[in-house]
Formats: sequence, C-alpha cells, structure tokens
Amino acid sequence: MSHSRVTIVGVGLLGGSLGLAIRLAMPDAEIVGFGHRPSTIERAIACGAIHRGEPNLRRAVDGADLVILCTPVGLFEDLMEQFAPGLKTGAIVTDVGSTKRSIVRLAERLLPKGVHFVGSHPMAGSEKRGVEFARADLFRGNVCILTPASHTEPAALRSVANFWTLLGMTIRQISPEEHDQRLAEVSHLPHAVAAALVTMQDDESLQLLGKGFLDATRISAGDGALWRDIFLDNRDNVHAAIGKLRATLDHLDSLLTDDNSDALRLWLDSAAQRRSQL
Amino acid sequence: MSHSRVTIVGVGLLGGSLGLAIRLAMPDAEIVGFGHRPSTIERAIACGAIHRGEPNLRRAVDGADLVILCTPVGLFEDLMEQFAPGLKTGAIVTDVGSTKRSIVRLAERLLPKGVHFVGSHPMAGSEKRGVEFARADLFRGNVCILTPASHTEPAALRSVANFWTLLGMTIRQISPEEHDQRLAEVSHLPHAVAAALVTMQDDESLQLLGKGFLDATRISAGDGALWRDIFLDNRDNVHAAIGKLRATLDHLDSLLTDDNSDALRLWLDSAAQRRSQL
Repeated sequence: MSHSRVTIVGVGLLGGSLGLAIRLAMPDAEIVGFGHRPSTIERAIACGAIHRGEPNLRRAVDGADLVILCTPVGLFEDLMEQFAPGLKTGAIVTDVGSTKRSIVRLAERLLPKGVHFVGSHPMAGSEKRGVEFARADLFRGNVCILTPASHTEPAALRSVANFWTLLGMTIRQISPEEHDQRLAEVSHLPHAVAAALVTMQDDESLQLLGKGFLDATRISAGDGALWRDIFLDNRDNVHAAIGKLRATLDHLDSLLTDDNSDALRLWLDSAAQRRSQL
Repeated sequence: MSHSRVTIVGVGLLGGSLGLAIRLAMPDAEIVGFGHRPSTIERAIACGAIHRGEPNLRRAVDGADLVILCTPVGLFEDLMEQFAPGLKTGAIVTDVGSTKRSIVRLAERLLPKGVHFVGSHPMAGSEKRGVEFARADLFRGNVCILTPASHTEPAALRSVANFWTLLGMTIRQISPEEHDQRLAEVSHLPHAVAAALVTMQDDESLQLLGKGFLDATRISAGDGALWRDIFLDNRDNVHAAIGKLRATLDHLDSLLTDDNSDALRLWLDSAAQRRSQL
C-alpha cells in the first residue's frame, strides 16, 4: 500500500490528523481530501494534511486504493451512495466511525461488487474540532478496533490492519455487534454522563469546580452533531448502558443508606485499583 | 501571620503540598507536621514540606497560630479531641476537608473557648497519594471555599481568607449547608459516577478504551478511605445528587426512545457549550 492513493472523506480533526499521519508513515502515498467547503480543503492543504482536494466526491475516490470515511456517522449513507459508482475494482473502503453495525450494513447494501469494506474504529479523538487541531500523532499508541463481518475478505482485513499498524495503532478485532455493545458502555455512556453532569449544575455550582470535575466532563465539549448521530445509531445499546450504570449507582446508594462503611470502602478501593491499572 | 507557627495535621499529598506552598509564600513561618507514622514525617522533612515533625499531636499544636487538618474527614473527631487541650488562646483551626457541616459542628463541640474555627475547602487535589507527590503549586489558581457559621469571628475569617489568598487561591464564601449540597453535585457525584463507570466494565471492554474514558474516570483512582468518609458524611446530599443525575439521564434516554434528533442535538450542543466555557 506504500505507493497508493488514499482518499480521506471529511478533513476535520480526525481526517486531518489521519492525513498528517499517513504522510509520515507512507511518504509515497498520494492523499486526496474531500470536503464540502472549499475553505476546509484549503486549510487542510495549508497544514499539510492532504496533497490535493477534490470537491466532487465521485472524482475524489477515482483511482483510490483506500477510501477512509471521516465525517459524522449520520452522513455515511449519502456519501457512500455518491461515491460508490466512482470506486475502482479492488478498492478498500474503511471509516473511523464510533458505531459499526449500521455502517457494515450500509456498505453491504451500497458498495459495488469487487470493492471491499472493513469497519475501523480508531480509539483516538479530541473534544476539539477542525483541521487546525489535527495532529500527526493522534493515533499512535492507541487501540484501533476492526469489525469484520462474516463475508469480509481476509486479504482486505489484513490490508486495513497493516494500515493502522503502520500508523502506530494496536489492532483489536471484534464483531460489529460486540463493538456497538461494548462501546456503548466504554465510550458513548461516559459521554452521556459527562454531558449530564454539566447539564445538571447551576451557574453557582460551576464557580466551585475542581480539576476532578473538569477531567470528568472534558469529553462533553465534543461536537453535538457527531454525538447525536452516534447516540441515535446505537440507541438500543446506549439505553442498556444507562440502565447498567443506574443499577451500579443504585448499589452505591444502598451502601450509603445502610451506612455500610466496610462495603463502601471495598467498592471504592476496587474501582480505584482497577482505574490505576489502566 | 508571616512570622507564625503553622501546624499541619496529616502530611500526605495535600498536607505536604500545603507545607511546600507555605514555605514559598511565608518564608518566615515555622511549619510543624504531625503524622501517625515516623516514616511519613521523615519523608515530609526530606522533601522540604515541613521544618520538623512531632509525633505527639497535643505537642504538635503547642504554640501554633494556625492548625490545618489535612487527614481524611473520618479522623477529624479523634484528632480534634486529642489536640484541643493543647491549643493556645487565639489559635485558628481550619481544614481542607471535602465536607463541611459535620466539621463545623465538631469544631463547635470540641474546640475550647478563645480558639477560632473556620472551615476551608481548597478545590485542589490529586488522585495520587503520599507526600512524594506533593507540589508547591497544587493550590495556586484554584478556588478555596470558606464556610463560616453564624458565630464565626470576622477577624478569624479574614485571616484564613488571607492565608489561602497568599497561596494563590480565589476565595468563595458559602454556608456549610450550601457547601455540602453543591459539592455533592459538583464533586462527590462525579467521583461516584467515575467509580461506577469503571466498576461496570468487564476486562474485555477495558481493552477498548480511548482517552475519553481515561479522562472521565481519572478521579476514581483516588483514595478509597478518604472518599468513603466523604460519601458517608454527606450521604443525604449524595443520595439527592444521584437522583438528580438519574433524572437527567432519564431525559436523555427519552430523547433516544422518541428518536428526537433535534432535541438531542440541542441537549448535546448546550452541554458542549457550557463545558467549553469552563
């Protein structure tokens, strides 16, 4: 894949960081960027994230060996419909979306025969937005989850795994269904809770903050439209995850009501120990 | 207070950081440390947090102008009972505890006439433990909440406010009751939620983490015994705060169930905007 053409669809913080990382890891690859707004493309070129921009999506994927969807999940259907006819035979399509079941289904439905889709979820991001905040090292050292379906071609899966490995990521592989269930608990729920913690405070309490609150709620500053898409797309699992958190907090609440000092200490110590090991 | 003697009761991360900060801000003050274990005292002296240690608590407060309680809240009653007879007339006692109602009541009951108590809650800390992690700048730039009661002497309140200001903190003043209610929502609940988010994951999900989860749960690595004391001491307010979070998450859940994309976007955007302004 070292002499290949890579098309990045959506050059915001993630797409831009991806471009910068690919330039470093695959110096011979050509990086084409697609973005709705000409100004975004210009800024992406200016900061070195892409070699050239292409405002026509179908043309943007022309001749691409690898196409990477980096927009909010809610736009994937429209985008795939538009670029599908422009893909060459043997092209591989992947994405950086935070949900996987619906995307894998979309790809099955919309991509032509001879084109391979492999779902990716690099666990890297930021609450910041825009290509100005793109960083070449955003992905390095983090986990990338691949979610092959039963019919995913092994060679395409290996190619995509190699690609993320080249960018410094550690690969984990689970089904789209398991991905969406686990990520609801480990990513979507924490975002929901952070937003709820901010929402429930009045202005006076927000004058009394410590670093703990700032850390705990940092993710809630992320793009609302992007997270809306994730929550709606994964709503069954997010609902279940909220229920699981509620049960866990109910348990804590019962320890308080019962004045159960020993069990409370044990519960807190056990969480502290698990967290310290991460 | 510049030529005074300050006694720090408990020289862990907070007490040690306090000693380092006092040394910088009040170079003529003598700093005496009390700790249960001789090894803790030795390490506190070695890192420059205190001038000398005193394993006898009553002798440790002898001649002190200012005594600062820096142990977990659950130990305050025993400690105050022990050191109360050793305090000189005019001494000021304060603390760094995360709850305030019970501490103000304790001080009223246990401290002799002629000694002044002013409750303090510097919003500074760390999930790390021990004087080795003490930092002279832990307090600088953060808020310190003072919780005077109706009978608190204005001069003593001013002294304590000046003390924290000298250490670079911004003073806010509210009643002990309001403190405990607001801090339950803005500090104790976020800790409970962080611990719950860690507790509810299985080992497989903990392999799929991103930076968001790490940020959101960082506080849960804090000392279990310290947080047990806080939760038990403030259990009525923590219970109410859990209820308030539950209602907020129920609202979110209903937006998901109703597929209410616009309201969900609004809810997420509003949280993102509030968080970005902090």
